[in-house]
Amino acid sequence: MQWTKVLGLGLGAAALLGLGIILGHFAIPKKANSPAPSISAPQDLDLEILETVMGQLDAHRIRENLRELSREPHLASSPRDEDLVQLLLQRWKDPESGLDSAEAFTYEVLLSFPSQEQPNVVDIVGPTGDIIHSCHRTEENVTGEQGGPDVIQPYAAYAPSGTPQGLLVYANHGTEDDFKELQTQGIKLEGTIALTRYGGVGRGDKAVNAAKHGVAGVLVYTDPADINDGLSSPSETFPNSWYLPPSGVERGSYYKYFGDPLTPYLPAIPSSFRLDLANVSGFPPIPTQPIGFQDARDLLCNLNGTLAPDTWQGALGCHYRLGPGFRPDGNFSADSQVNVSVYNHLELRNSSNVLGIIRGAVEPDRYVLYGNHRDSWVHGAVDPSSGTAVLLQLSRVLGTLLKKGTWRPRRSIVFASWGAEEFGLIGSTEFTEEFFNKLQERTVAYINVDIAVFANATLRVQGTPPVQSVVFSATKEIRSPGPGDLSIYDNWIRYFNRSSPVYGLVPSLGSLGAGSDYAPFIHFLGISSMDIAYTYDRSKTSARIYPTYHTAFDTFDYVDKFLDPGFSSHQAVARTAGSIILRLSDSFFLPLKVSDYSETLRSFLQAAQQDLGALLEQHSISLGPLVTAVEKFEAEAAALGQRISTLQKSSPDPLQVRMLNDQLMLLERSFLNPRAFPEERYYSHVLWATRTGSVATFPGLSNACSRARDTASGSEAWAEVQRQLSIVVTALEGAAATLRPVADL
Amino acid sequence: MQWTKVLGLGLGAAALLGLGIILGHFAIPKKANSPAPSISAPQDLDLEILETVMGQLDAHRIRENLRELSREPHLASSPRDEDLVQLLLQRWKDPESGLDSAEAFTYEVLLSFPSQEQPNVVDIVGPTGDIIHSCHRTEENVTGEQGGPDVIQPYAAYAPSGTPQGLLVYANHGTEDDFKELQTQGIKLEGTIALTRYGGVGRGDKAVNAAKHGVAGVLVYTDPADINDGLSSPSETFPNSWYLPPSGVERGSYYKYFGDPLTPYLPAIPSSFRLDLANVSGFPPIPTQPIGFQDARDLLCNLNGTLAPDTWQGALGCHYRLGPGFRPDGNFSADSQVNVSVYNHLELRNSSNVLGIIRGAVEPDRYVLYGNHRDSWVHGAVDPSSGTAVLLQLSRVLGTLLKKGTWRPRRSIVFASWGAEEFGLIGSTEFTEEFFNKLQERTVAYINVDIAVFANATLRVQGTPPVQSVVFSATKEIRSPGPGDLSIYDNWIRYFNRSSPVYGLVPSLGSLGAGSDYAPFIHFLGISSMDIAYTYDRSKTSARIYPTYHTAFDTFDYVDKFLDPGFSSHQAVARTAGSIILRLSDSFFLPLKVSDYSETLRSFLQAAQQDLGALLEQHSISLGPLVTAVEKFEAEAAALGQRISTLQKSSPDPLQVRMLNDQLMLLERSFLNPRAFPEERYYSHVLWATRTGSVATFPGLSNACSRARDTASGSEAWAEVQRQLSIVVTALEGAAATLRPVADL
Repeated sequence: MQWTKVLGLGLGAAALLGLGIILGHFAIPKKANSPAPSISAPQDLDLEILETVMGQLDAHRIRENLRELSREPHLASSPRDEDLVQLLLQRWKDPESGLDSAEAFTYEVLLSFPSQEQPNVVDIVGPTGDIIHSCHRTEENVTGEQGGPDVIQPYAAYAPSGTPQGLLVYANHGTEDDFKELQTQGIKLEGTIALTRYGGVGRGDKAVNAAKHGVAGVLVYTDPADINDGLSSPSETFPNSWYLPPSGVERGSYYKYFGDPLTPYLPAIPSSFRLDLANVSGFPPIPTQPIGFQDARDLLCNLNGTLAPDTWQGALGCHYRLGPGFRPDGNFSADSQVNVSVYNHLELRNSSNVLGIIRGAVEPDRYVLYGNHRDSWVHGAVDPSSGTAVLLQLSRVLGTLLKKGTWRPRRSIVFASWGAEEFGLIGSTEFTEEFFNKLQERTVAYINVDIAVFANATLRVQGTPPVQSVVFSATKEIRSPGPGDLSIYDNWIRYFNRSSPVYGLVPSLGSLGAGSDYAPFIHFLGISSMDIAYTYDRSKTSARIYPTYHTAFDTFDYVDKFLDPGFSSHQAVARTAGSIILRLSDSFFLPLKVSDYSETLRSFLQAAQQDLGALLEQHSISLGPLVTAVEKFEAEAAALGQRISTLQKSSPDPLQVRMLNDQLMLLERSFLNPRAFPEERYYSHVLWATRTGSVATFPGLSNACSRARDTASGSEAWAEVQRQLSIVVTALEGAAATLRPVADL
Repeated sequence: MQWTKVLGLGLGAAALLGLGIILGHFAIPKKANSPAPSISAPQDLDLEILETVMGQLDAHRIRENLRELSREPHLASSPRDEDLVQLLLQRWKDPESGLDSAEAFTYEVLLSFPSQEQPNVVDIVGPTGDIIHSCHRTEENVTGEQGGPDVIQPYAAYAPSGTPQGLLVYANHGTEDDFKELQTQGIKLEGTIALTRYGGVGRGDKAVNAAKHGVAGVLVYTDPADINDGLSSPSETFPNSWYLPPSGVERGSYYKYFGDPLTPYLPAIPSSFRLDLANVSGFPPIPTQPIGFQDARDLLCNLNGTLAPDTWQGALGCHYRLGPGFRPDGNFSADSQVNVSVYNHLELRNSSNVLGIIRGAVEPDRYVLYGNHRDSWVHGAVDPSSGTAVLLQLSRVLGTLLKKGTWRPRRSIVFASWGAEEFGLIGSTEFTEEFFNKLQERTVAYINVDIAVFANATLRVQGTPPVQSVVFSATKEIRSPGPGDLSIYDNWIRYFNRSSPVYGLVPSLGSLGAGSDYAPFIHFLGISSMDIAYTYDRSKTSARIYPTYHTAFDTFDYVDKFLDPGFSSHQAVARTAGSIILRLSDSFFLPLKVSDYSETLRSFLQAAQQDLGALLEQHSISLGPLVTAVEKFEAEAAALGQRISTLQKSSPDPLQVRMLNDQLMLLERSFLNPRAFPEERYYSHVLWATRTGSVATFPGLSNACSRARDTASGSEAWAEVQRQLSIVVTALEGAAATLRPVADL
């Protein structure tokens, strides 16, 4: 088929010969027998290939991948994690179904582990100093997979070691307000142990907020109200349902930032400069330990003191009190204390990313990057192996077409299996630090599929506006699993939707935080990114996340029996991602619709006008320049769209299209400003940086306003508001300039 | 000619039609009748066009341009400066000889001026408080051009106003060591006025160093020894020779940084956030005033105190003493003091850049940027009008070919006339801040011709290694002015040369500091840059710079009679620049030889090993990773060179060449790290940032080492050395990755 295209263009034999040489040198892997398309030929998305790929992404193989990947625990840098590195290399180097090349990139990174000799313990200590009760050190072995040396004891990664002991208090989510509330209730927090529940704030924040009030140690548990829709008895939980068993404990990283803690902005290669531990910031300040809700019940339901506020109550089957200490009529004598003994240690470990590439036939220097992390806390069947099972099936189907010689994409496709994500997106961050410029100049988009399936109800996509259109095009063409004959798009819109001024009712994309490996790509490199998964029907569950998240109960059987029997949701995600990869790598014109940024900018602007306009006026700060900048962007984005559709009707020259595609690809970069938020490590994207302010507008403006709010006009804080406003205006004006015809001044 | 190329490619009529539409839309200016080359046709450098351009760059027109440009003083933001903006716009919009489009971009920037009502004065005040002697307030009107309201009084731009009075001391160049020397000589500096001479350190540094010792005011003069080869009498100086008359005073900016002082990193558009004056850093701390050497003689030759060191002596015809105060047997009573009254003020003024563009026919989104500033201190015939005269002739010759329809370059050529350079590269810096991303993504190289001719002896080029080869190719083909039948290259090599391990004896390029508008392009944007001029035979003069630099004697007659009679050196610079512009904009393969960076890296590495190796070893810091990184770069650069020559032998596809050219163009970017030197404003290039350390190696390493030298191992200073080493290693590894075949992992 490619051949006829080439001949159709009427290129002479000489030209083909020349092309042969070029391809021989650049595009064709040794011993590959793929056809040599004209480099100039407008090779475009091939719908037949798309059909084939969709057809070959079958659920059964994904299921088999998952069985293999989740057979054993594969904590970052563990022997099994290393085995999986080898498995990926072997799959990606397979002569029948592999990629053009694959390689492992290893970094030496700082991880945190509990002691094997001296397990972390949480005890209740009586007045005489003897232990009158101990919390469980491990999860109950209900399916035979929760035991064994490779199941790491529940712990709070990067929490310091120490053995604080004190009266217990209950601090709800452990937010700043929660501790303030305890203070106003007149509770002396100095030297206490604070029992908190997951949710509300980040893991590490609970300890940070607690320490500010002199709290000596922190316990964190998952309340059945937050994860199990209130259910808590063994008969109601896994293996009898998808709900978390009473002994289940959520592990996790308690580090504030992402990337290797010792090498910010530098790749963690052995020779790199490493911070002195004394200079590392972002670790929890006090010993912290997570526990299961059966242990939490013993502690919480015996607390003394006043009743906790209604919003603090949970589903442990008792009235939650604030403490301090236990009630006289409870299981423990009133003056008993809680001892939290944490023996975590930091260790430099080798962790590898595995990268595999399919060389582009026409534009090998344009990368469509698709990735997921490989490391888990225990078996990690859902997190992250559901995504890796999809990754392996996708690469296998595309690799097979490649090796058969029936297909080679226009642009390069890079598959990535990241290491040590659970400890703080470490593998992906080090990768972006090592190849910063190359990736920034050449990456078309980054696609992340971590947890492929949270539940079976609907697709859920987070991403930046330019990727919306390609996600829509892909999902409209794929049948949704489950009842009815809906497309994934039509099913999706029933669960997540918004009314777009441009398109009417459409599925709504979420925005990208820092929950998975897309973070360094969007925030640090400014690459258009997306995260794809299948997820819940929120009318059926209020679970914070799938119940066995980061526990030893996240196993293959859990997925196979409860999460996605038949793996049709896995298949739906694989097809969606596969279609997006093909559209991004094979389309002549990049399917990145930059004008879809206009809606975001408009809504940010309107929020600023409505919620900050009056305040800013009081301090004689005008939003006028921001209005002008947004309007300029809208106009330029629309005009570029016009030029593209005009070109598409003609028979455009490949070089001409390359120039336009560069404008589309590089737009996201124009929103980066490494000097905008110097204190926010890696966050350089002026539209998607962390927003602490309450107004849904440009983060720098919102955050600066909430800091300045209570200061006088002319304060440094108000100057910072003006600086942030100018930073956004400059970014938007720069973005508009990037979209303008390239030879306009 | 282009047509046969197109047909030669055998494209069908349909394709041509398509191309017509595209070109109509993108490449062809309205009403232009240039041929429509195939966008894909490997349009390459056309030697006939090159010959034509070389021939049409005649000296006479450059002379006429200079006469017009230097007719009147054109200080930044003055009415005449605005007139010249209009002149440039009119020339560049000329239907017969203009460019495709031209536009003025105006910024609101903070400039500094002396008061018109209250001129700055330097008086000698007797014990009774009456003025017994006054220095000249203006330069002597020897040619009729040194008078009139538009000749701005000599002053130190950005020096604060104030009227300090005290005993006079002589402080040589006003370096830190100079003031330390005065201290060791037991001279009380508190409250004194320090007389310093130009040279040794930056203008502003003299006041900074002085203030540290309690000095109240600073005078700066140009010693005849430093500028006039010792000559100082009216009969020996202009208008009788090229030397500086006794009343001549060098004006200049005393601001430490570059760019608009109120808007660092933001374009100085009206709406931009501006620093509060209290938060502006980099202005001289104490009143400062420049004077001529005839006034300096009156002061210096009457000084009391011990004899100044030999190296401090000059050519004023007396023995320089240190002071404090005047000698009893001199012209002024011993207890007389010097009063320095400075009445400078800061003012927000509009200053414009003028941009003109020739749209590229094939790759309009690749910019060859050529610029010079427009503003002068007085008439500025040499600085900057010699460069602007060349700029106007170059743009006229190319514009004429364009309008005739005989030529259109493959890539876009952008001409720039920068505003307010004399106050601190302000116009060019604001431009790079406003269009940061667009310029960084698309600019092939920046060529600066500020002072085109310092003298007639030889070419002098400063630039980064990738531009060396194109400068050599250009200069080998152009006849040098003056006796003999040498090429510019062969003449150049007689004055500046080095022995290259690769090429043997070659002309040596200087490295780029921050002396003109190239600074923001190389240091802030990482764009390969060069600065071109004709300059001295150092065996004939030791002048710091051409004698009338920044004075009212830098006039057309000065150039016409002494600096370049016949304007053949101007023509040589115009031809060199013109050839370089054509080669960069028309060559199919970009003539940027990245492998020429290998020599630089090697020499930096060797310097580090020889001069720092032992010291680093003592503190157990290894240069091993740096050695590896340099070797890796050398290998990848050589391999890329190989691939290019292979391709050149074949009939390469335009898209294929574009990909290689992108690697060549973007290499320089990979040396940028905005987080490497946070305290050095704009300096992000890890190879060319300011080097304070004495070792000619990587600046970050050198500077960190000189700071750490006297501290103990394990100090923060030594940690910074290791951090800087890792920053360089990461940059070099990243650069090597950029040069690797694009589809290699």
